[in-house]
Amino acid sequence: MSSVSVLEKIAKRLRIHSLKMTTAAGSGHPTTCLSSAEIMACLFFHEMRFNPKDPFAWENDEFVLSKGHAAPILWAAYAEAGIIPQESLLDLRKITSNLEGHPTPRLPWVKAATGSLGQGLSVGVGLALAQKLAGVKARTFVLLGDGECAEGAVWEAANAAREFKLGNLVAVVDVNRLGQSEPTMHQHDLKAYVKKFKAFGWDVFSVDGHKIDQLLQALSGARKGNNPKVILARTIKGKGVSFVEDKNGWHGKPLKPEELEKALSELGPMPAIDASRYVKSREKAKTPKWNEGFDFELPNYKDKTATRLAYGLALEKLGRVNDRVVAIDGDVKNSTYADRFFSSFPQRSFESYIAEQNMVGMAMGLAAKGFLPFVATFAAFLTRAHDQIRMAAYSFSNIKLCGSHVGVSIGEDGPSQMGLEDLAMFLPIPDCVVLYPADAVSAEKCVKEAARYKGMVYIRTTRPATPILYSPEEEFPLGGSKILRRSDKDAVTVVAAGITVHEALQAYELLRKEGINIRIIDVYSIKPIDAETIVKSVAETGGRVVVAEDHFEQGGLGTAVALVLPEKRFWKHLCIRELPRSGKPEELLAKYGIDAASIVQAVKSLL
Amino acid sequence: MSSVSVLEKIAKRLRIHSLKMTTAAGSGHPTTCLSSAEIMACLFFHEMRFNPKDPFAWENDEFVLSKGHAAPILWAAYAEAGIIPQESLLDLRKITSNLEGHPTPRLPWVKAATGSLGQGLSVGVGLALAQKLAGVKARTFVLLGDGECAEGAVWEAANAAREFKLGNLVAVVDVNRLGQSEPTMHQHDLKAYVKKFKAFGWDVFSVDGHKIDQLLQALSGARKGNNPKVILARTIKGKGVSFVEDKNGWHGKPLKPEELEKALSELGPMPAIDASRYVKSREKAKTPKWNEGFDFELPNYKDKTATRLAYGLALEKLGRVNDRVVAIDGDVKNSTYADRFFSSFPQRSFESYIAEQNMVGMAMGLAAKGFLPFVATFAAFLTRAHDQIRMAAYSFSNIKLCGSHVGVSIGEDGPSQMGLEDLAMFLPIPDCVVLYPADAVSAEKCVKEAARYKGMVYIRTTRPATPILYSPEEEFPLGGSKILRRSDKDAVTVVAAGITVHEALQAYELLRKEGINIRIIDVYSIKPIDAETIVKSVAETGGRVVVAEDHFEQGGLGTAVALVLPEKRFWKHLCIRELPRSGKPEELLAKYGIDAASIVQAVKSLL
Repeated sequence: MSSVSVLEKIAKRLRIHSLKMTTAAGSGHPTTCLSSAEIMACLFFHEMRFNPKDPFAWENDEFVLSKGHAAPILWAAYAEAGIIPQESLLDLRKITSNLEGHPTPRLPWVKAATGSLGQGLSVGVGLALAQKLAGVKARTFVLLGDGECAEGAVWEAANAAREFKLGNLVAVVDVNRLGQSEPTMHQHDLKAYVKKFKAFGWDVFSVDGHKIDQLLQALSGARKGNNPKVILARTIKGKGVSFVEDKNGWHGKPLKPEELEKALSELGPMPAIDASRYVKSREKAKTPKWNEGFDFELPNYKDKTATRLAYGLALEKLGRVNDRVVAIDGDVKNSTYADRFFSSFPQRSFESYIAEQNMVGMAMGLAAKGFLPFVATFAAFLTRAHDQIRMAAYSFSNIKLCGSHVGVSIGEDGPSQMGLEDLAMFLPIPDCVVLYPADAVSAEKCVKEAARYKGMVYIRTTRPATPILYSPEEEFPLGGSKILRRSDKDAVTVVAAGITVHEALQAYELLRKEGINIRIIDVYSIKPIDAETIVKSVAETGGRVVVAEDHFEQGGLGTAVALVLPEKRFWKHLCIRELPRSGKPEELLAKYGIDAASIVQAVKSLL
Repeated sequence: MSSVSVLEKIAKRLRIHSLKMTTAAGSGHPTTCLSSAEIMACLFFHEMRFNPKDPFAWENDEFVLSKGHAAPILWAAYAEAGIIPQESLLDLRKITSNLEGHPTPRLPWVKAATGSLGQGLSVGVGLALAQKLAGVKARTFVLLGDGECAEGAVWEAANAAREFKLGNLVAVVDVNRLGQSEPTMHQHDLKAYVKKFKAFGWDVFSVDGHKIDQLLQALSGARKGNNPKVILARTIKGKGVSFVEDKNGWHGKPLKPEELEKALSELGPMPAIDASRYVKSREKAKTPKWNEGFDFELPNYKDKTATRLAYGLALEKLGRVNDRVVAIDGDVKNSTYADRFFSSFPQRSFESYIAEQNMVGMAMGLAAKGFLPFVATFAAFLTRAHDQIRMAAYSFSNIKLCGSHVGVSIGEDGPSQMGLEDLAMFLPIPDCVVLYPADAVSAEKCVKEAARYKGMVYIRTTRPATPILYSPEEEFPLGGSKILRRSDKDAVTVVAAGITVHEALQAYELLRKEGINIRIIDVYSIKPIDAETIVKSVAETGGRVVVAEDHFEQGGLGTAVALVLPEKRFWKHLCIRELPRSGKPEELLAKYGIDAASIVQAVKSLL
């Protein structure tokens, strides 16, 4: 065990580093680092077990800095632990350094990007779940700020941690009283936090966060039992530097060089201690052996089948050949058909209840430990987790998201349940693959492709059952498309995806009766998009193109196609242009102008 | 007071309506209506005060059905209250009817669209705040489901209600034990909810939700004091129909005609009672008299000024001439500069702390009562409220959102703080105006235009100070743009907005030295977009166009321009194409290819 005096010395070193780094950078959040110096010292140099040479060791305890703006003290702790060179600290926030303003996994010890507050606890839940799934004794620690406890996502995670009996999850809240623009809601009323966490079923410890002995006692108490634990640490923002201590207006401000000098003289000389000697590791854990296949058989689909059902069927089969696959639901698994996986693999299935932010946050944690999370809910409700999805991108997170019930084709449930902006949410994300299968075969194949791809994938599925278009042998590589109808005399190219592919096929029949041939492209891969095929087809049809999609005008298939087309003089974009309402699917497709009749009309208008 | 037996009869009528409506529609959620029949009867025909002839009367109590899938019983209550014809109930979910699958304000009694769960309580907070601001005695009632209490947004709202001492807010939770796909986390453990709401500072009542006398007693107890109140009502999903009562697998399923017959025989005949006689109204309240101006003076800006500061300055001035304007912050008001308004108008300023979902939900409630909410946070953090923003659109909500700190130009804080997908979030929303001012003058004018427009507006502001481009007299109508540089021999059109306008102007100088003239368009209004000017300019520059934006590739300015251009053979799109990192603003603009040098290069590549 590290002695109190050793930890006090390390805490002082962390303080001095944090101040110097931020002044050198000319920006950053030193005062929020100062409040957590003792906490960080106790965690990294007393309580946590990790092998500083291997960020991916299964026996490592994991750490999430949910209050990401305290990044400097995290980098300082890594430097003190011997993970990164101490001299690199002065590169904080430089474009050439991985020591960014807020943590990102560019440094592999960081398991998820933080900096959008209130997300770290869900990631911690995912990490702790992963440790349990792998059967290792390791634990997960999450450091939160008090301000971020106003985020609902924290309480979603609190529910989940209790529900999953995560005794290996320890949260510490650095209750430093001050937010960015004013004091926090509860200021130093620790009891307010105690009540909340207790009500959410957590074991709670309250301490003075600058008293090493109190922190150690709480950490020791937090080692037992199946409940998640939280240590509420009363701290002083800016602790140790008299002229910033507990003062409003110092959030996110580095000390000026002359202020730094004054602060350093108050703090005294850097204690001469090699903190890395106090890093403790755990006995090496075996790397779990898992099946990691990606191949499964498809049935010979004959009857109309919803792509959402095919997603569920494929996911279940994927689960049989790949032990890394886990599924997460937000109480709609009987609609997304993730329930097929839940039934077969209850140990690898996690019910987040109606808490989509936590759903994605947990997935990030699970993915960081090498699991392959498939998260599914209605596409519309993925918007609830947009910020988490954004942060998952910055975490280079290997998560797969499925949004079902897209577009007006869902029908009577009405607009609140229609995913009409989901493509616009996923397409901007660099390196995110976006798939939109039109039939059950392509839906199953998209699941396989999603699993194989290392990175975020979004799969868009449709509520109604749709006819089968492809044979089970057909492959659907990322970045591809399928030309479903073609002839030498095609007058117009119709670019479609999902439900509109079937409308286009009906339009084809109607138009053919009038002697008009159209080319139909099924753009099952919206990103990467098969620009070559689309551009070539449109050129071959005299530049005439109709894009039909069950999505709002901007940010979807239409804009993706517009980006790659060199010319769109003869262009019709059929999409949802107003706020839709309840009605029968076919009525809505007609009313908002994306049905077969609308495609026929658009084609004719271009001739 | 309505007697218990009267309310029991009304409850039975509501049950029968709900069953008949959903069977007639062939879809919908009857069982969740049945659990809330007594609650709805007690609220609408005993406790609430409203004038059934005037949905906008200030003296009305407001009601939010947060569990929006129980829409049929809401429509039934309106019918029983004499607000809509009873025969219209059988039009549920028809495309011709305003009785949608989930409530929307197409019926003016509905103050916010619901159906994405966990949002109604924040709307209720906003409505209750509005009632207090207007100085009326009216109250707000919110009916929640138990399942949606897993949503973090509920707890954000719970915090806010306590913080704002909303004694006029009464929540009822219909604890019917069953979610969509399985039992809820707490099932019938009412104490779990009691603990949580108490911990969040609410007055709590627990009742059997099918016992009228218990409900009335709780409602009576909930009339006093400054704390928000919650009534936790233990109920049975499907109550009253033996074969669906408390059974899993009946969520969102109407009875088949033969099942309906059986259910109706169990329930007995429709009680013969005119419920509308039991509607109670309150003495007419005076409509508050407010200044409602939109005009304010601009200074003669000379020095570089950040558009975010101009936003704050303009908002404060708008507040002086318009009493409907309110401001909402998520603890970043000293960065968005909403703090200027907060200082001058503390009574009309609402700190949501770090809880962006609640921020937008409260704004919806305030807007529904005629206030003009301006909500500001970092653009990146508005993604946290994407689902609320989506539902605000379906609520036709007159709210204004400002996202500051957009793009890589924020610099060292790194990607978690960069708004790089905000345009992609707002541009798809039908009728949402999207403004992106490049200087302080246009930023102030955009605030004015936003206030005048009836509907959602998004204003995108920039962190660094930028040069002044316009005189204070210049106007910035919606759908306009400004040509900043033009000549008869322009070789390329550069389309820019915000920070890239300044890079384009630098590029202009650099290129002019080489004898190359470029045309520069400042697209301050991205939606509606000035297609005419852009198309004409591009045509005049030989079809050559460079779009430069501080946003990811898809869903932003580039795709908006691509949509309107008939041809883009000579097209360069400068935007952020990878996940960016920390660094100095100018370094990042260069690294990701949207600075002046990149524009120069792009222009030359087109020549």
